[in-house]
Amino acid sequence: MKVTIIGAAGMIGRKLAERIAASGQINGQSVDALTLVDVVTPEVAIDFTGKREAYAADLAQAGIASRVVADKPDVIVHLAAIVSGEAEADMAKGYRVNLDGTRALLEAIAAHEGYCPRVIYASSLAVFGAPFPDKIPDDYHLTPLTSYGAQKAMGEMLLNDYSRRGLLDGVGIRFPTICIRPGKPNKAASGFFSGILREPLNGQEAILPVDRDVRHWFASPRSAVGYIEHAATMDTAPLGAQRCMTMPGVSATVGDQIEALRAVAGDGAVALIRHEADATIANIVAGWPRDFDTARALEMGFRAENSFQEIIEIYLEDEMGQKTLNGA
Amino acid sequence: MKVTIIGAAGMIGRKLAERIAASGQINGQSVDALTLVDVVTPEVAIDFTGKREAYAADLAQAGIASRVVADKPDVIVHLAAIVSGEAEADMAKGYRVNLDGTRALLEAIAAHEGYCPRVIYASSLAVFGAPFPDKIPDDYHLTPLTSYGAQKAMGEMLLNDYSRRGLLDGVGIRFPTICIRPGKPNKAASGFFSGILREPLNGQEAILPVDRDVRHWFASPRSAVGYIEHAATMDTAPLGAQRCMTMPGVSATVGDQIEALRAVAGDGAVALIRHEADATIANIVAGWPRDFDTARALEMGFRAENSFQEIIEIYLEDEMGQKTLNGA
Repeated sequence: MKVTIIGAAGMIGRKLAERIAASGQINGQSVDALTLVDVVTPEVAIDFTGKREAYAADLAQAGIASRVVADKPDVIVHLAAIVSGEAEADMAKGYRVNLDGTRALLEAIAAHEGYCPRVIYASSLAVFGAPFPDKIPDDYHLTPLTSYGAQKAMGEMLLNDYSRRGLLDGVGIRFPTICIRPGKPNKAASGFFSGILREPLNGQEAILPVDRDVRHWFASPRSAVGYIEHAATMDTAPLGAQRCMTMPGVSATVGDQIEALRAVAGDGAVALIRHEADATIANIVAGWPRDFDTARALEMGFRAENSFQEIIEIYLEDEMGQKTLNGA
Repeated sequence: MKVTIIGAAGMIGRKLAERIAASGQINGQSVDALTLVDVVTPEVAIDFTGKREAYAADLAQAGIASRVVADKPDVIVHLAAIVSGEAEADMAKGYRVNLDGTRALLEAIAAHEGYCPRVIYASSLAVFGAPFPDKIPDDYHLTPLTSYGAQKAMGEMLLNDYSRRGLLDGVGIRFPTICIRPGKPNKAASGFFSGILREPLNGQEAILPVDRDVRHWFASPRSAVGYIEHAATMDTAPLGAQRCMTMPGVSATVGDQIEALRAVAGDGAVALIRHEADATIANIVAGWPRDFDTARALEMGFRAENSFQEIIEIYLEDEMGQKTLNGA
């Protein structure tokens, strides 16, 4: 099958491309063409024997979406988005990329009569807004409190409507906070969730800006790729008209994260975490969901880790190339 | 204050314009300018002493929304929409008018710095999709099953987001099915809810295409106007970031409707209703909501009728100019 990844230069897109290239398949289904698209030409070092292409494209520009779907990929993974902070700071840009770009893609697909590709849409926990119950159920209402969340919720509505009309075959994935993100620290408000683990695992100091009792919803980058692989090949008939789901994950407090780090890397690693309260970050994080009941996604076959220790071990395996930490 | 009604040629827009013109005010607040806009120039016979204007405009056309808000109305009532059946039959037209038109209006308002009008947005019960609980609560999730419902739900998201950002001061109104609609029978699937009462009240036969146990959610045209008047002058601070509400109404079965007709107009009127089952209409109506708990709107001061008999009596008063039916 032909697979196109839009937003392929991001962390999840890159890992997905690498995984498809390495195996030449998705869940046993052979992939013979892989196209990588992003606003900058994705430079993904992959060893792929099928037909490959990579180019820069901005879906929200006139005519671009038509080009992206011109070769009628069987699976289109739409990960491209302006992230939360930027969509809040630049309202026009957020709506242009997150809403108009998504709609342009769906319209370009619909314009091909008889073409009904699997479309995997990256949604977000930001479609939900406080106040929350302790455990958010699958049928919880969407009350986004950011422009990013509103744009993602509108994208879900579009995906459902176009799927209901048989114009495409959509699956919407609400990703947990992906942890441990590889690479350098970034300035996202959620950055510390990865930083307090990644930096100590690499022998460096990390700042913890919130209290240990802050609870949130996590999965590994490996699970993030796994959701997409499953969404690409699953039977979508049981989804009916509701194509979007919160993905399974691990509900963990910062304290749980730290104890998992201790179990994997010892007291020395934990000692590298320095608590430095940041009221701004604490306030932002206080509005985030803490726990989900993802019965629907589990029933549909989506999987994630069972503990935070597993999430750390996956980082060791996938990013540090070792099963356990040296010296731990 | 200056009031602009978009979609002023429709039944509710016309009644609202007539009521404002007759009293020169909304809820005690003096209206000194009234502008009526629709895709055709609204011809509303009103006797209004303030400044008045009426013109044809299509919000989704480039530059039109800017013209509509150029004189900075204090209150903008946005009733313009492609209705459910047409939005389903003509997908592009529905998205253009219901989504693009609404967004163009909100963007044109946002483009005026320091301008923050009250914007009253007509939403719909179609934002909800079956399966339903017997009584749908205020926090029920939006799972529209028509393109119209999806477009209205996206309009709600936009209204919330623009309001949260302080670019306008939105109130979204999910109207019950308005009953008894004056005028000729129409071909809407919901038309019989009015027809089985209106036609007999006027001495004519009516067809009932469904069973007597079909239950639905109703309010009078007078209540519809009342919601808008209240939304125009209410304190919106208690709404917070969630600007859209299901309006109070009367949950009634077709049997309840018929018994209310009997109480008001006697057995002779009821005898004019002929049951002629229509499986297509029965199927459509089976997917509609039956009852709501509208605690939030009630707390915010919105009101409707308390019984179906009241709804019929309002038709007699407002459309037939009499308090009770002659001869009943």
